[in-house]
This record gives sequence, structure tokens and C-alpha cells, in this order.
Amino acid sequence: MTHFHPVALEHASRLINHGPTVLVTSRSKDGSRRNIMAAAWSMPVEFTPPRIAIVIDKKTFTRELVKDSGAFGICIPGAALADLAYAVGNGTGRDGDKFSHYRIDASTGPVLGLPVLEAGCAAWMECRWIPEAHTEDAYDTCFGEVVSAAADERVFQRGRWSFRDDNRALQTIHHLGAGNFVHAGQVIQARPLG
Amino acid sequence: MTHFHPVALEHASRLINHGPTVLVTSRSKDGSRRNIMAAAWSMPVEFTPPRIAIVIDKKTFTRELVKDSGAFGICIPGAALADLAYAVGNGTGRDGDKFSHYRIDASTGPVLGLPVLEAGCAAWMECRWIPEAHTEDAYDTCFGEVVSAAADERVFQRGRWSFRDDNRALQTIHHLGAGNFVHAGQVIQARPLG
Repeated sequence: MTHFHPVALEHASRLINHGPTVLVTSRSKDGSRRNIMAAAWSMPVEFTPPRIAIVIDKKTFTRELVKDSGAFGICIPGAALADLAYAVGNGTGRDGDKFSHYRIDASTGPVLGLPVLEAGCAAWMECRWIPEAHTEDAYDTCFGEVVSAAADERVFQRGRWSFRDDNRALQTIHHLGAGNFVHAGQVIQARPLG
Repeated sequence: MTHFHPVALEHASRLINHGPTVLVTSRSKDGSRRNIMAAAWSMPVEFTPPRIAIVIDKKTFTRELVKDSGAFGICIPGAALADLAYAVGNGTGRDGDKFSHYRIDASTGPVLGLPVLEAGCAAWMECRWIPEAHTEDAYDTCFGEVVSAAADERVFQRGRWSFRDDNRALQTIHHLGAGNFVHAGQVIQARPLG
């Protein structure tokens, strides 16, 4: 049973308004390859249409896949996934499929067919890449337009986050650096995964 | 007695790595006018040189001053300043000096002479504006390079945040929308200021 429900596109910016660390998902156009990485550097840039900016290093496998498919996914991990977020932020997907390696159970986004995570995540978005050669080159800053979004109703309802004692595992995490995340006032030290 | 100490530029990105709401300060080239606004949408884009991106609406007085002076400041309010952050995020500085109106005690940044706040803030940065006409126009996204930074040693030391029970008032705030901020696991409801 899923607790995920669609988020109105006019509310999509709220999902990353407060600066959470996100997971970026991608796939090749032919669907034969996919990837997932962590990104601490993202922000909304417009409410309507819902557009975001995110820093994705030009050397990454993700950049290659985004350019190939014209799309990327944003998944917002809950606190319970801090270890995973830290793990997929290290190492490259060129060396092997990280979804298989970390046994990540991904669903398929409804509009762009991107891998999206629900278990342990608070929300996800599918984004259509907006090519901006100069800022991608100069600042590794990529732009995208959100075309579908969903969130776990236990932590995000009617366009608003609701952080409570009973949903701590779904609360967003914010990377301080070196595997330390702020979460609901606590610092979580990520552990290496196998 | 100040608790502020310089932050090494290689650590500047850490100050906004976790997505805090910030205050953007600016002044006209001739120093006759100044402004302060809140911004939830900012992110680092590079470690070295330390560069950041921030969304500043093209209609704002701040954009006008940034273009005039070629610089902007970033102040990172602690939880005790949530009300002020919400207040300066509404209303325009064209109608009157917000520093005077809200009795904000600003210091002068050492490199660019920008207004910077220490009392109640966790940190500040002075940024040299990097003009990028297209992204400013299309996404209201402005780039800047950090040329000086300082932080309150009670909450940021040797390049790292330290959020503890004894420094809650200096902990960063993260805007969920509509005046609700996440702070150390608690939601702060900002009140209107006079």
C-alpha cells in the first residue's frame, strides 16, 4: 500500500524550498542504463511553471544520462535513508548499476518514465531538462521543469510539509558536509553501506 | 564583544550547503541607499572559487542595487531572527530603509563594504556579483563569488556547523512556506513585526 499521492504542480517548489538533500535519478533514452546520485545543491527558481536549478558535475554519469534522455528525477529522502543518500553520493554509476548494488526498489515515473523512489522517501518529482549550455559549463548548474510530483501523505499534505514526532523517519535531511545531516534538530552521522 | 570570526573561503560553501533561508543585503554604489530582503532559494555552485547562485526577483529593489554596486551580502539568520526574516521578506525597500524601520544594527563588510548582520545571525558572506544576463532574465537566478565570510564561533567552527542544545537561537532556519520554518526539528511560526 502506498502513501504517495500526486502533488499539484503549483506546490512542487515547496518540496525543496527548505533546502533538503535530494537524490537525482536518470536513465538513458533507450532505457538500458540508469543512475542515482545525491545532490545537496538544488533550489526552486520559479513557482509557475515549476522550475528548479540543480548542480550536477559535468564529469558525472548522471550528466551524461540527462543529456541523452532530456530528463531527470528528484527524490527527497527521509531521515531513514541518510546512509543511502551518503552512499550513492560516492562512487559512480558507470562502474555498475547502483540500484542493484544497494537493492533500491524504484518505481517508474508516470510522465517521463524516470526511476523514482517511494520507500523511505518523502517525495519525488520528474523534471524535463531545460538545456542551458553556458551555466552547465560554467557552474555545473542545470535547469529543469517539474512535470509530475508526488509525496507521502504522512509528511506532505495539501501543499504543505508537516514535520511531527510521529513521522521523523520521513523528515527531510540537510547535508552539513562529510556525511553529517541535520534532521529535525538532530545530526545524523551516515554510516558507510556495504 | 563579538563571537564572529573569519571563515576560510574554502569553507564558505558549507554555510549554505544545508539550505538555510538567508537575508540578502545590498547598497547603492554611492552608499546612499541600502536594502535587505529574505531569500529561501540559494545554493552553492562551486567550492573553489566559492561561488553561489541565488534567486532574486527582477522586480526587487535588491536587484537594482546589486546591478548598481556589483555586489551583494548574504546573512544567515539564527532561529531567534525568524520573525525578522519573514518581515523583511515582505514589503519593498523602495518605500523606506528597512534597516531603520526594523532597527537592524548592521556592520560593514571588510572587503566590499556591504551591510552585514551579526547580532542574531550565524554567519555572513560578501559576494561579488557575476553578471549572467540570460539566467537573470529567464530564471531570476544570480551568481556571485564569495570574497569574505565570517561566522559565530558558537555555532560554526573550523569549517563545520555544530548544532547543539545550547545554541538553538543561532541555529539556521529553513522556510517551508507561509512563514513556517524548520529549525532543529521544530517548526517556528513567524509573527508579523510592527
